[in-house]
Amino acid sequence: MSESIIRDPLEIERRSFRTIDAEVGPHPFDEQQWPVVRRVIHTTADFDFAGTTCFAPGVIDSAVAALRRGAKVLSDTNMVLAGVNKTRLAKLGGSIACHVADAEVAERAREQGVTRSILALRKGVVEGAKIFLIGNAPTALFELLRLADAGEVAPALVVGVPVGFVGAEESKEALFASRLPCIVCRGRKGGSAIAAAIFNQLLILAAGD
Amino acid sequence: MSESIIRDPLEIERRSFRTIDAEVGPHPFDEQQWPVVRRVIHTTADFDFAGTTCFAPGVIDSAVAALRRGAKVLSDTNMVLAGVNKTRLAKLGGSIACHVADAEVAERAREQGVTRSILALRKGVVEGAKIFLIGNAPTALFELLRLADAGEVAPALVVGVPVGFVGAEESKEALFASRLPCIVCRGRKGGSAIAAAIFNQLLILAAGD
Repeated sequence: MSESIIRDPLEIERRSFRTIDAEVGPHPFDEQQWPVVRRVIHTTADFDFAGTTCFAPGVIDSAVAALRRGAKVLSDTNMVLAGVNKTRLAKLGGSIACHVADAEVAERAREQGVTRSILALRKGVVEGAKIFLIGNAPTALFELLRLADAGEVAPALVVGVPVGFVGAEESKEALFASRLPCIVCRGRKGGSAIAAAIFNQLLILAAGD
Repeated sequence: MSESIIRDPLEIERRSFRTIDAEVGPHPFDEQQWPVVRRVIHTTADFDFAGTTCFAPGVIDSAVAALRRGAKVLSDTNMVLAGVNKTRLAKLGGSIACHVADAEVAERAREQGVTRSILALRKGVVEGAKIFLIGNAPTALFELLRLADAGEVAPALVVGVPVGFVGAEESKEALFASRLPCIVCRGRKGGSAIAAAIFNQLLILAAGD
């Protein structure tokens, strides 16, 4: 059994990418977009993402420029944070935070009767985050749109891929209609792993490795 | 826009579960299994998991008993670890670790020419882990099967849901054939979020809340 197992991670990735390329066939993505979509499929084994992933005009250039300036990144969950390549981000001078489990955020959410995700998002904006990775919380995405509309934040990148049956799809449609530099996966599907995969591919592009 | 957003997480979950129940319709799962499968669908919005998720006989009883004894849990990635409800696990007297990013694991993997996942798995076994959450690394799953076959570990639960195009499916089929107490999602799909979702539902069952 074990003799046939491929153990080299890079070789596994190369073979996986070849399989994905072959099974997807012709697609509408350009040479910067396709590696992003391919990595999402690699992360999920779900080819639906080839049909649902959408890029706002200029979003990759905006994201890469911000990453090369050493951007502050905010994620909506600790799973997204755990999935991000923090070594590569730090080499570019960037950093990432997630405030949803902060004790003070939880306390104020109870007091104010709003979701912790909303207050965690506001805290990230106050701290100067320019890149937002939202894999789960539609309420965080709606709050970001509200703050952007009010001129309180000008994101360089919003990865908006909440998953679910209540509010997720609507939040992604609102984001894509907002003209912010964003990458979304339309429909119900998405999640932490997808948010991290998209961002990690942009990190590879920005780092040029 | 914001007036219509549902912000109560429990209400969002209830509505989501009703939608999933209605869309899945009749299914082969019993009253302990279905909440597990439903949580996976809730986490992914992917109904394929209703057709791919399989339970070894007695696995839920085995898992719940181990959790109520305060089991040591090992995950293959930090994303799985981040997704697990550690508060609920700790209340049951359990703990969770992930060794894939340990410096000594990385160093020994380079020396020995094996994956970090294999050495991280071995370290968990040495530390007495009885529950294994494998969302990504087929090599970790194959190593666990080898150690179990050699009598070096007797898992109370293996959540075996590696995702991908090279080795993932084979590793899950080998697990399901092993007669270990396991939950698998057959085929290519799986991942960190799925592993955490399955385990979190078992935690709810074990905690009785």
